[in-house]
Amino acid sequence: MLVVMKHNASEEQIGGVVGTIRDMGYDARPIPGGQRTAVGLIGNDGRVDAARLQGLEGVLEVIPVTHAYKQVSREWREEDTRVVLGNGTVVGGAEIVVMAGPCAVEGEREIIEIAQRVRERGATVLRGGAYKPRTSPYAFQGLGKDGLAYLAKARQETGLAVVTEALDPDGADLVAEYADIIQIGARNMQNYALLKRAGRTGKPVLLKRGMSATIEEFLLAAEYVLAEGNDDVILCERGVRSFDTHTRNLLDLAAIPVVQSLSHLPIIADPSHGTGLRSKVTPMGRAAVAAGAHGLLVEVHQDPPRAKSDGAQSLYPEQFAELMEQIGMIARAIGRELTPPLSVAGSAS
Amino acid sequence: MLVVMKHNASEEQIGGVVGTIRDMGYDARPIPGGQRTAVGLIGNDGRVDAARLQGLEGVLEVIPVTHAYKQVSREWREEDTRVVLGNGTVVGGAEIVVMAGPCAVEGEREIIEIAQRVRERGATVLRGGAYKPRTSPYAFQGLGKDGLAYLAKARQETGLAVVTEALDPDGADLVAEYADIIQIGARNMQNYALLKRAGRTGKPVLLKRGMSATIEEFLLAAEYVLAEGNDDVILCERGVRSFDTHTRNLLDLAAIPVVQSLSHLPIIADPSHGTGLRSKVTPMGRAAVAAGAHGLLVEVHQDPPRAKSDGAQSLYPEQFAELMEQIGMIARAIGRELTPPLSVAGSAS
Amino acid sequence: MLVVMKHNASEEQIGGVVGTIRDMGYDARPIPGGQRTAVGLIGNDGRVDAARLQGLEGVLEVIPVTHAYKQVSREWREEDTRVVLGNGTVVGGAEIVVMAGPCAVEGEREIIEIAQRVRERGATVLRGGAYKPRTSPYAFQGLGKDGLAYLAKARQETGLAVVTEALDPDGADLVAEYADIIQIGARNMQNYALLKRAGRTGKPVLLKRGMSATIEEFLLAAEYVLAEGNDDVILCERGVRSFDTHTRNLLDLAAIPVVQSLSHLPIIADPSHGTGLRSKVTPMGRAAVAAGAHGLLVEVHQDPPRAKSDGAQSLYPEQFAELMEQIGMIARAIGRELTPPLSVAGSAS
Amino acid sequence: MLVVMKHNASEEQIGGVVGTIRDMGYDARPIPGGQRTAVGLIGNDGRVDAARLQGLEGVLEVIPVTHAYKQVSREWREEDTRVVLGNGTVVGGAEIVVMAGPCAVEGEREIIEIAQRVRERGATVLRGGAYKPRTSPYAFQGLGKDGLAYLAKARQETGLAVVTEALDPDGADLVAEYADIIQIGARNMQNYALLKRAGRTGKPVLLKRGMSATIEEFLLAAEYVLAEGNDDVILCERGVRSFDTHTRNLLDLAAIPVVQSLSHLPIIADPSHGTGLRSKVTPMGRAAVAAGAHGLLVEVHQDPPRAKSDGAQSLYPEQFAELMEQIGMIARAIGRELTPPLSVAGSAS
Repeated sequence: MLVVMKHNASEEQIGGVVGTIRDMGYDARPIPGGQRTAVGLIGNDGRVDAARLQGLEGVLEVIPVTHAYKQVSREWREEDTRVVLGNGTVVGGAEIVVMAGPCAVEGEREIIEIAQRVRERGATVLRGGAYKPRTSPYAFQGLGKDGLAYLAKARQETGLAVVTEALDPDGADLVAEYADIIQIGARNMQNYALLKRAGRTGKPVLLKRGMSATIEEFLLAAEYVLAEGNDDVILCERGVRSFDTHTRNLLDLAAIPVVQSLSHLPIIADPSHGTGLRSKVTPMGRAAVAAGAHGLLVEVHQDPPRAKSDGAQSLYPEQFAELMEQIGMIARAIGRELTPPLSVAGSAS
Repeated sequence: MLVVMKHNASEEQIGGVVGTIRDMGYDARPIPGGQRTAVGLIGNDGRVDAARLQGLEGVLEVIPVTHAYKQVSREWREEDTRVVLGNGTVVGGAEIVVMAGPCAVEGEREIIEIAQRVRERGATVLRGGAYKPRTSPYAFQGLGKDGLAYLAKARQETGLAVVTEALDPDGADLVAEYADIIQIGARNMQNYALLKRAGRTGKPVLLKRGMSATIEEFLLAAEYVLAEGNDDVILCERGVRSFDTHTRNLLDLAAIPVVQSLSHLPIIADPSHGTGLRSKVTPMGRAAVAAGAHGLLVEVHQDPPRAKSDGAQSLYPEQFAELMEQIGMIARAIGRELTPPLSVAGSAS
Repeated sequence: MLVVMKHNASEEQIGGVVGTIRDMGYDARPIPGGQRTAVGLIGNDGRVDAARLQGLEGVLEVIPVTHAYKQVSREWREEDTRVVLGNGTVVGGAEIVVMAGPCAVEGEREIIEIAQRVRERGATVLRGGAYKPRTSPYAFQGLGKDGLAYLAKARQETGLAVVTEALDPDGADLVAEYADIIQIGARNMQNYALLKRAGRTGKPVLLKRGMSATIEEFLLAAEYVLAEGNDDVILCERGVRSFDTHTRNLLDLAAIPVVQSLSHLPIIADPSHGTGLRSKVTPMGRAAVAAGAHGLLVEVHQDPPRAKSDGAQSLYPEQFAELMEQIGMIARAIGRELTPPLSVAGSAS
Repeated sequence: MLVVMKHNASEEQIGGVVGTIRDMGYDARPIPGGQRTAVGLIGNDGRVDAARLQGLEGVLEVIPVTHAYKQVSREWREEDTRVVLGNGTVVGGAEIVVMAGPCAVEGEREIIEIAQRVRERGATVLRGGAYKPRTSPYAFQGLGKDGLAYLAKARQETGLAVVTEALDPDGADLVAEYADIIQIGARNMQNYALLKRAGRTGKPVLLKRGMSATIEEFLLAAEYVLAEGNDDVILCERGVRSFDTHTRNLLDLAAIPVVQSLSHLPIIADPSHGTGLRSKVTPMGRAAVAAGAHGLLVEVHQDPPRAKSDGAQSLYPEQFAELMEQIGMIARAIGRELTPPLSVAGSAS
């Protein structure tokens, strides 16, 4: 951390900053410059509260140098984290993983049917919400525990691993009983009680980037899970808030290589929420793979116009098939492959 | 809701939209125009899922006309909601309420001392966090239940009402036992499990605007509380995410008159989190009152450089006194008054 | 345009809106709804000033339905615009065009050398700034007219077409004498005097999206060029302002398919300015092609650490070669091809 | 400037950074830390190109410490700049200046009439556009040179000083002949050719903040004018781009005290463009004064519903009168005054 002093800061003020830093238990090193002095804080362990220095007399600004995240960083662990799911799918390796399914679980028959369809086309993980966070309290909120049971049934029938969202701490425990991956949604990215509980279940956690989260905040949210002793975190870029309304969100694909350089955790992209428009899902799904994503999370529905939620952004099964074909070729263009489809035997296990 | 068709949409496609709207249980009215046809959806009760229409063939875009919020709107209730606190303070009337205190409760002695100081200068509500949501898992997370007990003690000593934050559903029940107002922080604005539980306690809820929440989303979050039968919601503008880093957030003061025209709920401003810089708190606190805010939420600390959190944005007690004096004059310039200070007797009760 | 009335708007207020619309020379149609009345404005020719209606008594909000742009829209012209350059390169067809070169022209020898290198690797257009818009008045501002002459020399030597930026109206005329494409930079996207003059030259115009321009504003800026009788506009997505500082801008790749559905104009992407970081240029260049861009604008420098501007985002020639190879494969994955490299004969012409 | 190295950067890489800095003509000082080394660049004169260092091997990030602006900064000149206009009005002193008038000049009679009305209510500067930058090429673009002549006539009749916008370099010369202040609009904040020419006229320049300009970019744009030897720059906050559509822009009032601490230049606010809604202009105008603005730029029209542009955000004369009264009282609450109204004699001169 660098504390930049005003150009006319007095010796006493510089001394005040040095003293405060030492009070906080760190080492301080004044660095005289051409126009002004800066004071370096040495030994930052990620717990330094910049705020305390910012308000001191004579301080122009406080510039963070060390990042506050630790265990999620590449400096903590050099090699990529590989999250291994129950059915053998690996997220974070050379193979690109596709998680597909409806926005919400709508019934037992429906979820099994769509699971079979996305499995046939090469998905190895099934997505589907049993608990739906909805902006309006009057919108459909999901089937709840029944939805979880149907997802488990679909897994049994198809061999797909299951990812589904938890909305509160108790829900995290429940989801952990039924699913392979606990999803934390964008609205809850900084719901620390939920992050901690999800971390403690020991299950893989799929963490979506918050609506306007910086990459630093995104990684710090993941740090909450790792701090509970759970390293199996899959990050997910799903678009940030923008001033343009043509798409639901602004899918920030550059976040993929940025996160990959800062962290060892795998990162996938959600072009469905990232655009909100069916016709944009395929181009942006392709783009995410071309940008180096470890996988995709895609909404697919057997009859999108009749979907109970997010129908506008769900692919028809045949569109999903075309997406799979195209991303397979793009993967090869950058020296990667899609995760091989589950064998038929897999579904019978 | 208006479904705008592409200029070359076929009669069949227009018919498809009309049919889908009727399937959804609403009335549809085609409106031919110069360049294209639009289809109006009549009878929207706030539950219409635009997504289902967006993806239909021939649809250019879906434009919401009715807002999804109901009970929070001025159309639902014309007159301003007045939230009455235990010590008689009214939020939402002609008088401007000041809630002040430290970012975090640091100890029994400390919170009582600062409570006395802000009370002397005219605050009638004490703020202070017992549970602190921190971006980093390694930062100070608050004193927890002890902090709540100290706040209750400070209330007993000073007569100030108490507002403090809850971070999860169980925490909302606990905070409701000790405090006069349950605060829901910006990070949790769309934590629906928390909103519902806080609503069910029946206690007044102070709801902070999320980092990048639109005003529509902000009001819909409040709607979650009202939908539980609890009308006592105080909204709080605390700044939104910006691309400029000089201030911690961008305090959106225009949101105050905008919310006041859309909703009957009171709205206050938090210039401390809204700027993150002590020297900007006073100008922006004044500006919020001039813009018509029903009150302020301000961080004040007896020794900001030694505060355990957010010291950089906490006022010194003497700065707080100056702020109170200036906003008193500004209130009068617009025909309002500050809430009268608590009488000394009040503190003894 | 839909004028939504407040739920308690009087008949007189509705009549006032109808009257004002008719005063403005359009037809008005009241549409009674469940909760409120809306008034449709019929016959909008893109010149309606919403502001005039917004402020009328009883009006809740004015919702634009017709877009203000005309000639740039797909509704005006169904088939894709193909911009044909002097050396035969076509922008806007099935083939993907790569424009490459240094940020700034640094000298005659330097520009010819880099032109040869990018040509060998398959670029068919040379980029390079003779006039550089710099945030600071004290930064290197380009070689000016000499730079233009060097670019023309490089074209003669290599057969590459040339794109370079103009900063003011007189500059547009000058650039038109030397270059094949006049570039309008992001800072000048709404510099209407410049847009008009560039339009009048009759030369193809490459228009970069402004820092925080909506897609509607972007298309309206292009409309200024078309309104001068010049249809040869190439749009360029180069990233928008974001709250995250890891990348220089936030490359909004979804804008590519969005623009392609709204407009017949070609759109390319600039992953160099879009990220500001060399290591992110290749992934994002690949992603842009996968998203369907008609081409790329890429900074390449023979010795980036010694570049006079933007060295941090310039590729080394060998990195550019790898990018070309990968995007060639990605183009094929989506049924397209790169523009064939210029024949050696081309360079001798 | 601080070049932060990766934690595993080699000695050779650190040496490379040191060497490059010295090549650039500055001094380099390695600062070893707990986790990594940083290299300080000493003697930054504001011309250092961070980009050149960013791309070097082993570099994690480059953190600017010195700001690139010079002459606009408080470190260059401690005391506030006071811009003195032809009629004696001072912008930048203790008195708050109000500039008022229509969005566009609509005719000689109209501009004189509104000039008289705003003068009676205490404005001392008349605003009104002769050249209007419009998002659509088909919208009313202003009366041009005739408009300038009418403004000059209105000045003669009323004694008000005149501010009006220039759109291109030649226009700046023309505006300088007729007006007291040359306005540079938000869309042109980084139109450097225009900034330079306006600077060279020697006339005061009112520079509006760009739609998504950081404060650093805003000050650097002003620096372009000062670099031409013209110190009379008045900054104007007019709202930045936001994701919420209730207001036209998001008025960033905190920018006022932030700019005042960084720069000696006066800063005013434009609550008309800042909100785009008549009913929000008065609260935000009051808030701007409470935040410490040196003045306001306000749109007032004798018949807003018939205004040729921006009618929705123009105040009626009686609303303007109320605003003047309220801001007079708010000014006194913070120890300031409004500029005294022009004497009747003034109008006859």
